[in-house]
Amino acid sequence: MQKMKPFIIIKDPKVAKLFANETRSEILHNLRHREMTACQLAKILGKNVSSISHHLSLLEKAGLVRRTRTLVKGNIIEKYYQASAQKFIISYTLSEGLAPESEDILKWKREICRGVVDKASLFGFDVPEEKKSKVQRLVEKYASLKHATLERVISRQKESSEIIKPEMRLLISLLTDALLSRNDEYLQVIWEICNEIGVK
Amino acid sequence: MQKMKPFIIIKDPKVAKLFANETRSEILHNLRHREMTACQLAKILGKNVSSISHHLSLLEKAGLVRRTRTLVKGNIIEKYYQASAQKFIISYTLSEGLAPESEDILKWKREICRGVVDKASLFGFDVPEEKKSKVQRLVEKYASLKHATLERVISRQKESSEIIKPEMRLLISLLTDALLSRNDEYLQVIWEICNEIGVK
Repeated sequence: MQKMKPFIIIKDPKVAKLFANETRSEILHNLRHREMTACQLAKILGKNVSSISHHLSLLEKAGLVRRTRTLVKGNIIEKYYQASAQKFIISYTLSEGLAPESEDILKWKREICRGVVDKASLFGFDVPEEKKSKVQRLVEKYASLKHATLERVISRQKESSEIIKPEMRLLISLLTDALLSRNDEYLQVIWEICNEIGVK
Repeated sequence: MQKMKPFIIIKDPKVAKLFANETRSEILHNLRHREMTACQLAKILGKNVSSISHHLSLLEKAGLVRRTRTLVKGNIIEKYYQASAQKFIISYTLSEGLAPESEDILKWKREICRGVVDKASLFGFDVPEEKKSKVQRLVEKYASLKHATLERVISRQKESSEIIKPEMRLLISLLTDALLSRNDEYLQVIWEICNEIGVK
């Protein structure tokens, strides 16, 4: 395995849209931990090789995967691929719909926040029907602030070839929480959410 | 694929120790998304089949994987396995070293927290040598409170066969942050960390 970046922040909406396809997501998921050929991926994902090769070429053009080595066995050429990063993060600017062509991503984010409000009852926090749209807006604000802060932390990271280990995960979570604890807008939002859903 | 629990919280130190082996971790990782045979796992992980079968039997006894189906092809028997949950969480009580035989897990947690202090400089937060042990203790406290709160949120979850989707991830993060925002001990710890590492 070649060295891999821990994170890549996706700022191009055209690249971000590549993640909407389930097969491509699964390809990326598999290539985070090992290098594989189109043929091996096709077997694992139960797809045909030509479809996988097509997806791989789109992902390679977008810089999300890269070719690690090519083996020639008789008249068969085996090209190995690997993801370019351990984790891809869709930039805050796209999930806010701030960039051109990012409306779909904003819509997707809103759907997730509606899901959060609907599922809170699974954890014993019931949101009354008449409060749902207010709470959804607060959850959207919470998600935006958390996402923007996480991105701010990650983009401070100095050049490093290290993969994500437990300490990196904990460090990033700690720095994100530390920055948010000094953010008045965040404190206000989380306070309102606690009041609305009844966290004591 | 059979239905899978989203989370299992591991409270038995003997079971928790199974995660310390890299091959077993990789087996579990692969079985979270699909069912596979020992033979398929051996190929992907570059190990021999008998070693994989041994690990699978330990994992099955501990309830971390289960057999989904058995195919008979001629005189070959193919047993398919799948993880019992999408995500396994080592209980807070073990990582605090509170349970018998959990000292190793406590030690492992302390090492991670030392790593966090050492790596903070990668993100532009330098911890002076003479403050390192104080900051490490604060990071350990932060990690404990966050872990205990996450576990409290997850154990509130009502019986559900749903897998972890983006909205579940966001909901769990939101509820954890909401509970922590009302926890005075947490607020004190995060305030001290900000002061020590210079978060403005």
